[in-house]
Amino acid sequence: MLRSAALVGSGMALTAGGGAALAAAESEMARIRKAAESNRDADIKRIQDWIRLPSIAAENLNMAEGAAYMADLAKSAGFTGVTTVPSDGYPGVFGVMDNGAKRTLGIYFMYDVKQFDPAEWSSPPLEARIVDKPGWGKAIMGRGAVNQKGPEATLLATLHAMKKAGVKPPVNLVLLCEGEEEIGSPHFKQIATRPDVLAALKKCEGIFIPASWQGANGEVQVNLGSKGVIELELVASGEKWGRGPKGDIHSSYKAMVDSPAWRLVQALQTLVTPDGNNVAIGGWSDNVRPLTDREKALIAEAAKGMNEAQMKQSFGLTHWIDDLPFEQALIRLAQEPTANIEGLVAGYTGPGGKTVLPGRAVAKMDFRLVPNQTRAEAEQKLRAHLDKHGFTDIEANVSGGYDPTEVAEDSRLIKAELAAYAKLGVKANLNPRLAGSWPGAVFTAPPVSIPAGHFGIGHGSGAHAPDEYYVVESTNPKVAGITEATLGYAEIMYQLASVR
Amino acid sequence: MLRSAALVGSGMALTAGGGAALAAAESEMARIRKAAESNRDADIKRIQDWIRLPSIAAENLNMAEGAAYMADLAKSAGFTGVTTVPSDGYPGVFGVMDNGAKRTLGIYFMYDVKQFDPAEWSSPPLEARIVDKPGWGKAIMGRGAVNQKGPEATLLATLHAMKKAGVKPPVNLVLLCEGEEEIGSPHFKQIATRPDVLAALKKCEGIFIPASWQGANGEVQVNLGSKGVIELELVASGEKWGRGPKGDIHSSYKAMVDSPAWRLVQALQTLVTPDGNNVAIGGWSDNVRPLTDREKALIAEAAKGMNEAQMKQSFGLTHWIDDLPFEQALIRLAQEPTANIEGLVAGYTGPGGKTVLPGRAVAKMDFRLVPNQTRAEAEQKLRAHLDKHGFTDIEANVSGGYDPTEVAEDSRLIKAELAAYAKLGVKANLNPRLAGSWPGAVFTAPPVSIPAGHFGIGHGSGAHAPDEYYVVESTNPKVAGITEATLGYAEIMYQLASVR
Repeated sequence: MLRSAALVGSGMALTAGGGAALAAAESEMARIRKAAESNRDADIKRIQDWIRLPSIAAENLNMAEGAAYMADLAKSAGFTGVTTVPSDGYPGVFGVMDNGAKRTLGIYFMYDVKQFDPAEWSSPPLEARIVDKPGWGKAIMGRGAVNQKGPEATLLATLHAMKKAGVKPPVNLVLLCEGEEEIGSPHFKQIATRPDVLAALKKCEGIFIPASWQGANGEVQVNLGSKGVIELELVASGEKWGRGPKGDIHSSYKAMVDSPAWRLVQALQTLVTPDGNNVAIGGWSDNVRPLTDREKALIAEAAKGMNEAQMKQSFGLTHWIDDLPFEQALIRLAQEPTANIEGLVAGYTGPGGKTVLPGRAVAKMDFRLVPNQTRAEAEQKLRAHLDKHGFTDIEANVSGGYDPTEVAEDSRLIKAELAAYAKLGVKANLNPRLAGSWPGAVFTAPPVSIPAGHFGIGHGSGAHAPDEYYVVESTNPKVAGITEATLGYAEIMYQLASVR
Repeated sequence: MLRSAALVGSGMALTAGGGAALAAAESEMARIRKAAESNRDADIKRIQDWIRLPSIAAENLNMAEGAAYMADLAKSAGFTGVTTVPSDGYPGVFGVMDNGAKRTLGIYFMYDVKQFDPAEWSSPPLEARIVDKPGWGKAIMGRGAVNQKGPEATLLATLHAMKKAGVKPPVNLVLLCEGEEEIGSPHFKQIATRPDVLAALKKCEGIFIPASWQGANGEVQVNLGSKGVIELELVASGEKWGRGPKGDIHSSYKAMVDSPAWRLVQALQTLVTPDGNNVAIGGWSDNVRPLTDREKALIAEAAKGMNEAQMKQSFGLTHWIDDLPFEQALIRLAQEPTANIEGLVAGYTGPGGKTVLPGRAVAKMDFRLVPNQTRAEAEQKLRAHLDKHGFTDIEANVSGGYDPTEVAEDSRLIKAELAAYAKLGVKANLNPRLAGSWPGAVFTAPPVSIPAGHFGIGHGSGAHAPDEYYVVESTNPKVAGITEATLGYAEIMYQLASVR
């Protein structure tokens, strides 16, 4: 079976599923729906209010405030024993909800958001205005709308609706939140392995982060893992090198003074093949597990439902890497480790020119990792490569990262997700590996060792970009608005409670 | 003779020189000194007021206002027929002063200044406050203080002093000003060759820009030429390339999308030798005229008066390029063409990281040129190199530049400068080639074809950098304050009038 038995195009109406246990749930779901409908304005406002308090770890912005706000949101939704979990960085937030159920579901939240430049937005990123997104419907526009406050608050809306409907969730819940996701979760393992937190997580069948990634055709992906990543700054400086200037000097001196900017360029170009497309660091791919035939077949199947032309247009490009056909490009997306330059910063960066010889040059980079590469291995091999090429003075300042993750297709979490999507009439494609990265390895690797993934319906876009949005009122019958998305989170709880 | 017959350490007092014509000047100089002393406060205020109106061509800041202000300054100093000279860019300013003399001296001014970031300054860059510079004395601190408003306004102070003293300048004067020096004077040739301007310039024995570059030992350089330069942005973009994204996309897509940032890195590294120190563009040095033995000897002689340790300390480095000894490094400074990275800008440039794959990457560059390279040749060879290496999509957007200049050691301008410095008791070192660049080629090359250089005493520093300053009250007996610098400009006029 290449994908779940999805009821494509059947809209959001609940259809009769199999299984006696589910029958009882049907009436509860109807009551939850009614409560969710009456809570709708409050549920939207909850997202908007949260967006108005941006927590950005990279800028030390509202971190204590963001954690306290997160704790209040959790308490208000019915979690008990809610506490902040201190770390060597910014705190996590932890809470549980014992519903006297047999099984326990873990929920992972991030309360931080990505940096933003208001000048690039068509609507002020902290105002969370309701805007019209043609083809999608009414959406909240603001930083964090889809990544990840919108979907997360929608899950909280589910709990509010259940409470109002007098329905006890059919699973126990464990909620763990962090505020450093956007800087690579440098202290999340510390938070997740505090004894009481670890004990709670180990009881979970699995854990997911709420997500709203339905495409225009209503389809979603169920990810069986994700790439890892290390994020770092490569820094060449006169200070460390002893050759270039410490600060910026007049550029005429280039004839008698070395240039840290050229040194950075020379070091960078050793990291990749001449086309910039493959990592050329010694031994980089030694531990790479190639995709299996099944994994490739899953990608090929998923490719059929994707719109290549639209994707090319949205990226503004005319060729995939290596001139690959679409299906092969998608396989490459899942398969290959990458070296990416996120940003370059040296010397004068304003309008026009300025005749300086900069004393410091920085490449902001991310390296995506695939199973069975590890973050620690990547750091060590990068350092060894730089040293071997004589760039011992060039700093590789790793700011964060994640190991890759893998989740078994036959785990209860994945089976429940597929069953829930089927019940909701949403076609779900099994995706062997998300090309993006998330701190799931904190859960999938020892000592926690539970399945971890993403779940949710609805739509939003613009993560890390201007004009990020989250649809609350969908005009596309295949895509969920906030009320349907709220019911989606109830559905996964019922499915996890009953799946074999 | 390796240098002028300088009277080292004799201070600023006028000493008797040879030549009957100079005898008459002595009493005039005494009157000019008295007038300059009484004008001192107004002369300082003139500099401060000018600094408070920054004209920055790169930012289209106060350009019309700056030209009008420049014209007013010229008229007030006694120039006649003062007009703005329109160009395809920002206007020049032109004026003459017919003193019925036999010879004519050209004066070149720039009314624009370099960009600045107030956050980097210890004193607000537009307030032109008087600050204490230990070891130097009281100085005006502000953008343009030494580059070039301070020295220029000091020359205007000379004319004000002469007028007040009832002394007619011993030479006729031609003043030509531009407002695009800091962006590479892209339209200055157009301004200098307008028929009336050209006719006036061709009457000049030579032309100089006022400069205040005395070192702590009181010495100055007389430059026999300068390097040329082209300044440009090298741009790699998905838009031109058709392969990378047009805008920034999520970095996880690197595995299926090409990267303009990597493309820029790959193109950059072909431009120089692996150490970043020599231009590797095909045929780049074909027209380079090596330094003559005399030129090398002049540099070696000048090196003796320089403080290598202090220079290294001010740059914050421990080794010159190629581990050269100081004298060889200084020869290399004059001799070699350079490729310099002024700045790198791509993708995310703020604090921390951001997982984007940028659609555009820019290297801001300058290439210094030596005789007999030309700007046109450099542009053509850079383009040909990029094309030959397959980088036809990479833009090389040249924003400005200058050809190199050369001035004959036996020209009246140079002879008058050396005689003036001798008369002023200032040791002058002949420097075969300034490593910096200026639009002097507009004067030295056809159709103007007159000697062009720099002249002036006094001290300032920090051109293009924070905390730029110009000393007005010197506590170093070897270095001129504003009144002595004012007299210096009178001295060059008398010397040019009488030199053989």
